[in-house]
Amino acid sequence: MVDYYSGHSKYLFAVDCVVFGYEEGELKLLLYPRAFEPVKGKWSLMGGFVMPQESCEQAACRVLHQTTGLQNIFLEQVATFSNPDREEYTRVISVAHVALIDIRQHNHELVKEMGAEWWPLSNLPELIFDHEDMIREALALLQQKAGYSLVGIELLPDKFTLLQLRKLYEAIYQRKFDAGNFRKKVLSLDALEKLEEKNLTESRKGAFYYRIRYSQSDTETERIVKF
Amino acid sequence: MVDYYSGHSKYLFAVDCVVFGYEEGELKLLLYPRAFEPVKGKWSLMGGFVMPQESCEQAACRVLHQTTGLQNIFLEQVATFSNPDREEYTRVISVAHVALIDIRQHNHELVKEMGAEWWPLSNLPELIFDHEDMIREALALLQQKAGYSLVGIELLPDKFTLLQLRKLYEAIYQRKFDAGNFRKKVLSLDALEKLEEKNLTESRKGAFYYRIRYSQSDTETERIVKF
Repeated sequence: MVDYYSGHSKYLFAVDCVVFGYEEGELKLLLYPRAFEPVKGKWSLMGGFVMPQESCEQAACRVLHQTTGLQNIFLEQVATFSNPDREEYTRVISVAHVALIDIRQHNHELVKEMGAEWWPLSNLPELIFDHEDMIREALALLQQKAGYSLVGIELLPDKFTLLQLRKLYEAIYQRKFDAGNFRKKVLSLDALEKLEEKNLTESRKGAFYYRIRYSQSDTETERIVKF
Repeated sequence: MVDYYSGHSKYLFAVDCVVFGYEEGELKLLLYPRAFEPVKGKWSLMGGFVMPQESCEQAACRVLHQTTGLQNIFLEQVATFSNPDREEYTRVISVAHVALIDIRQHNHELVKEMGAEWWPLSNLPELIFDHEDMIREALALLQQKAGYSLVGIELLPDKFTLLQLRKLYEAIYQRKFDAGNFRKKVLSLDALEKLEEKNLTESRKGAFYYRIRYSQSDTETERIVKF
């Protein structure tokens, strides 16, 4: 038993978090200037090493909590980045995670203390290592999931108008959607609940608020696969 | 620089391959009896440790080549399994990969030498560690991808009838599809090319063979997201 395991190399194992927020009609990413060498001061995703008693999901939760003050947020593995030379000085394998947070809810003081900043996806600074690849894959995953579920909704407040939802989808897919088709498609999913209350800022008539029907989430995939 | 990296634990890092084939109308999985302690002799996915000069994708390719004789096959990360206690004796982090192979093309001798066997998905033996979780997640990924692309097609010969394609989809989703709706949906994707040649074994009139139009693959996601 010992023989089988002992002959093999061990590696440093880390997590990086692609933290998406949504503000002023666009997706933003939380980045921070790396606090240590190598590449100290360069912009980086939020990350950290996995500790002996942690899974990578637990490590990602810890990193997110330490850096945003938030708990119980949407978090999912994107992919594991394991090219032997992805860091210049030593081999570190890293699992990229995507996190979706309500940008209004995070701890601004914590973020400020670390020197972290929200950068618009359309205008990111140069990033260390393969962090740009991680972001590209995280966005692709988000787009894919948003095609069969209302996954992006974590980025909105609990209640939202269909206009707000469409603007979010336009930010996720980085293109415009026809208002009528979008409305029809989203309502056909039967995943939203219409509230009595109206948002009166969007138009003179006002627009009804909606919220998600969580009980529906399991059957969404089924509904899009229409065979 | 050294300080930052040196204080952290290192771990064994492995890959496991969920190898799907398709035969006699059902999905099958290639499993082998583990050749060493611990849990020697118990059924396991095909796996191995990641070597210093390899990424996990390269390690998975190597494992697949060593065990099936095949190269250039469909291979994709499913997820990284990193619970600290997923193996009883030591900590091993493992990236599960899904592989789709044409079951008629693999090296039967190699497989036989290792004592490996093709097991129907509907009737798997007891597996070591968290390999059942890996299979469940691999199947879910396959179903998800098959909902917006013709990913499962790697399991079929190069040319196939719509009946054969529907039977494959029924095996992937583990349920029946209406023949007419399936035909309509699949052809609407505009991803298949109809050949002149017919398969004469399915009916008196025969059924046309189709093959995939590879140039279409990039736009499939777009087409299913219909907003």
